[in-house]
Amino acid sequence: VRPEGGAAAVIIGNEVLSAKVRDANGPVLIQRLRDQGIPLRSVEIIPDEVDIIAEAVNRARQRARWVFTSGGIGPTHDDVTVQSVARALGRPVIRLPEMVALLSQNHPEGASEAALRLANAPEGAHLIAAEGMWFPALAVDELYMLPGVPALFRVQLDAVLATLPSFRIFLRTLYVTLRETEFAERLDAVDAAFPEVAIGSYPAFDRALDYRVKITFEGAEDAPVLAALRRFADQLPPDTIVREE
Amino acid sequence: VRPEGGAAAVIIGNEVLSAKVRDANGPVLIQRLRDQGIPLRSVEIIPDEVDIIAEAVNRARQRARWVFTSGGIGPTHDDVTVQSVARALGRPVIRLPEMVALLSQNHPEGASEAALRLANAPEGAHLIAAEGMWFPALAVDELYMLPGVPALFRVQLDAVLATLPSFRIFLRTLYVTLRETEFAERLDAVDAAFPEVAIGSYPAFDRALDYRVKITFEGAEDAPVLAALRRFADQLPPDTIVREE
Repeated sequence: VRPEGGAAAVIIGNEVLSAKVRDANGPVLIQRLRDQGIPLRSVEIIPDEVDIIAEAVNRARQRARWVFTSGGIGPTHDDVTVQSVARALGRPVIRLPEMVALLSQNHPEGASEAALRLANAPEGAHLIAAEGMWFPALAVDELYMLPGVPALFRVQLDAVLATLPSFRIFLRTLYVTLRETEFAERLDAVDAAFPEVAIGSYPAFDRALDYRVKITFEGAEDAPVLAALRRFADQLPPDTIVREE
Repeated sequence: VRPEGGAAAVIIGNEVLSAKVRDANGPVLIQRLRDQGIPLRSVEIIPDEVDIIAEAVNRARQRARWVFTSGGIGPTHDDVTVQSVARALGRPVIRLPEMVALLSQNHPEGASEAALRLANAPEGAHLIAAEGMWFPALAVDELYMLPGVPALFRVQLDAVLATLPSFRIFLRTLYVTLRETEFAERLDAVDAAFPEVAIGSYPAFDRALDYRVKITFEGAEDAPVLAALRRFADQLPPDTIVREE
């Protein structure tokens, strides 16, 4: 099975762009998607502005099947994710009855108007229960609106990922002592010959290492990945290959 | 002086999106720009694909005066930043004579065709010398194409930032024990009354802390920043304010 569509992420974060906090959610999302074999097409970090978020969400939906947003969920003026996603989808913001019920349970004294803002959602939204947290993840179609607070983001992300399929990725790595300029043309030719294999070349510039460049080959099936690596490695002087992994 | 235009970043990185390496350059750029008072409008992490990079570069140029790219500089097939930026600008790729001269100095045995690819640049490009590195930063107009290797990125970024102006940012922070739902409407009103002040509200969800929410006020001048903070703080019960910073 191929991971058609893949994922894209939109990090809504004035606080990240202004260096008040370092984004922890993007790296977690990147690693979890990789662990599940879902390719990630893009990550955009943008300000808390409705027009910009709506555009970024639409771009992400064009690029990928599964879209994740981080941040902008809450009751204050800078929490504009719900209205931005609604605008992107061309749907009204409604008050989600299941969420109103949850808010009422959690505010036995009566939920204030500000608290009830947490029940706002794009029309057609649904909730995904997150273990150990009364506050569920908010989804609409295959778009998941997760909170920016890292501890909450992680719990809700796990709940969402449990509903998505897993895929295998085959990765093989070659470490060489050559410089990139010494093999660039040969690697170009292998890249052109194996369109289903993603090939990356990463120079290290660290003299403490035993190699100069790490070359990665990966794809959804092992045979072409291995064939591409062999095709390339067989063209190199054997003493320039440090190891394969 | 106001930091008109600000900056935007495009991180070119299959290796980041596929979790092979954690992006170090975005966080460094975010912090250095903040230190220099240059507002950052967006950070996009995208694959090594010409069309996608060209679109992201154009988007960044519409959003910001100064645009930084990270990665995709080198001699291999996945180094497509120069051709992507050229496409975004509608300019041809030329071979930059100053860079050919530098490459010849650094390859006394004669620079190979692969090495000479490093001299490719969008027409109209210029070089910015980076201290302690023979390889200069490549710029075209106010767009800076920095290498993805973090040690090289940092040195070239410092060289570029030394050519840009600095601005002051005034930040004041209020820590409160209230929940966001208990002050959201009042903060909304202050936000609407002070359009020149950026206000953020960040709940903590950590019981070890002495506050529940951190509220930030910032802008290019201190008087409206302080006035916005006072307008808001004066509406709160005094015993709910932990401290101001």
